[in-house]
Amino acid sequence: MNNKILITGTVAFDEIETPHGSSGKIIGGAGTYIGIASSLLTNNLAIVSIIGEDFPEKEIKFLNERGINTDMIEKVTGGKTFYWKGKYHENMINRDTIITELNVLEKFNPVLNPEFSSSEIVLLGNLHPAVQNAVINQSTNPNRFIIMDTMNFWMDNTLDELLSVIKKVNLVIINDEEAQQLTGEKNIFNAGEKILKMGPEKVIIKKGEHGSIYLDAQNKYMLPAFPVEKLVDPTGAGDSFAGGIAGFLATANKIGIREIKEAMLYGTLTASFCVEDFGIEGLRTLNKQTLNKRVEIFKSYLT
Amino acid sequence: MNNKILITGTVAFDEIETPHGSSGKIIGGAGTYIGIASSLLTNNLAIVSIIGEDFPEKEIKFLNERGINTDMIEKVTGGKTFYWKGKYHENMINRDTIITELNVLEKFNPVLNPEFSSSEIVLLGNLHPAVQNAVINQSTNPNRFIIMDTMNFWMDNTLDELLSVIKKVNLVIINDEEAQQLTGEKNIFNAGEKILKMGPEKVIIKKGEHGSIYLDAQNKYMLPAFPVEKLVDPTGAGDSFAGGIAGFLATANKIGIREIKEAMLYGTLTASFCVEDFGIEGLRTLNKQTLNKRVEIFKSYLT
Repeated sequence: MNNKILITGTVAFDEIETPHGSSGKIIGGAGTYIGIASSLLTNNLAIVSIIGEDFPEKEIKFLNERGINTDMIEKVTGGKTFYWKGKYHENMINRDTIITELNVLEKFNPVLNPEFSSSEIVLLGNLHPAVQNAVINQSTNPNRFIIMDTMNFWMDNTLDELLSVIKKVNLVIINDEEAQQLTGEKNIFNAGEKILKMGPEKVIIKKGEHGSIYLDAQNKYMLPAFPVEKLVDPTGAGDSFAGGIAGFLATANKIGIREIKEAMLYGTLTASFCVEDFGIEGLRTLNKQTLNKRVEIFKSYLT
Repeated sequence: MNNKILITGTVAFDEIETPHGSSGKIIGGAGTYIGIASSLLTNNLAIVSIIGEDFPEKEIKFLNERGINTDMIEKVTGGKTFYWKGKYHENMINRDTIITELNVLEKFNPVLNPEFSSSEIVLLGNLHPAVQNAVINQSTNPNRFIIMDTMNFWMDNTLDELLSVIKKVNLVIINDEEAQQLTGEKNIFNAGEKILKMGPEKVIIKKGEHGSIYLDAQNKYMLPAFPVEKLVDPTGAGDSFAGGIAGFLATANKIGIREIKEAMLYGTLTASFCVEDFGIEGLRTLNKQTLNKRVEIFKSYLT
């Protein structure tokens, strides 16, 4: 199959500090990571986002070379691109936000074109739930499969809107601490069960370097993460995971439990390449062949 | 098969404080946990240890009822049993030792009887490497399979002796932080490779609630942990894990990669019951049937 993927998420500038080094100002954003990750497995995809005049044209070209349609990335004349600066703690998990400049993101009003409003897969990257909702409302495919990623910021600030989006999606992807915060449940499967009660038919809870779990009404699944040789920068790991999942599902004939499990493998391994370098550099030269090779190695660890 | 297991480890008093409660003075010790765990799967096993006059006779009887031979648990007249008091941090992983009274353990000189010196499986619980070594030296079965558990205390204080024991064993079981400390390697598989170079043919690295990995020259394996409903007391989790492994291997026809993987499942699930109550209470009434049921549930999460 060659289903279309519609991705919404930030296309942005990041600046990342870790105990081991600094990235300088580089490109990032959930939409960017998801798009690049998905593009390893399919070339029938588009990003809906917003950038300023300062976003480098060559990076848009890079996305296009990966088969990503960027027609719906609005470029605001005179505008500045969303910018985030963060610093990771010694554990390389927790991080502090140093600077957040929303810039053009404040006026982001996603508009889908007819080509991609009919996408079979819709991936809502971490963004204001109102924006995620606007994308859902313009999505016209009655059989679409909606994947949603979110984070604690929206739970703290826009919980009701977040819950209204969660209710409409097919698959929620969320990390373990956030699942705990959202549900008050410490046990990861109990947290998953409670999220299922909020509406989605499927949920994946991410545990970072400790893997992920999947849950629906009939199935439970646990997947470790690939033990990377050198963790350079965790930024984008969750987005790459989601992008790998969407990329795999876009090529599948249906979305059953087997396909979900295989998709999680692809998400996991895509994320493993992502964290081995700063920003998108771990994914920039990655191809499907190299990804497949690691998927096979990883599978041999699991059985 | 019904191979014999020889276990050495402390049979002791523990007092455990967690953020959620206190155990009071209860029985514990690596030998106790390992013995009870192994006894779920086999009744051909013995513990070599030392206790004082204060150790309750009814708990020795309990071990006997579980099929555990206690003839080699030396009772020192007028002596006091080893006592440890510890307090877990909020994360229920890290803990501080409040009190350690070695008592009779200071003079522990293990003496194997002929019945169990020929055991096919020898499990060296966490103890002074000199004691572990003394047990190896008395073990007479040329085809014995030696499993060793250890901890950072021995790395800090008796590293050379520890390394001389590691060299002689078939399987080292160690937790992730300790593997890192022992090898200087952050990547868990790299740490495992370095441990293999120290002599043992097999190594298992435990990651607590995040599961465990296995490594030999040909194979790598990753196993998540069972997500327990309620973590009450992590004490003995590692010992129960090792005991479950030994118990399973004792009943296997050979010790190949398939058997090791199955044994790790049993170890993981035995530990999951252990941590659901204080001390050995999570294991006291556990039987093979209940254990098997959880093993089957857990297997369904993995494939």
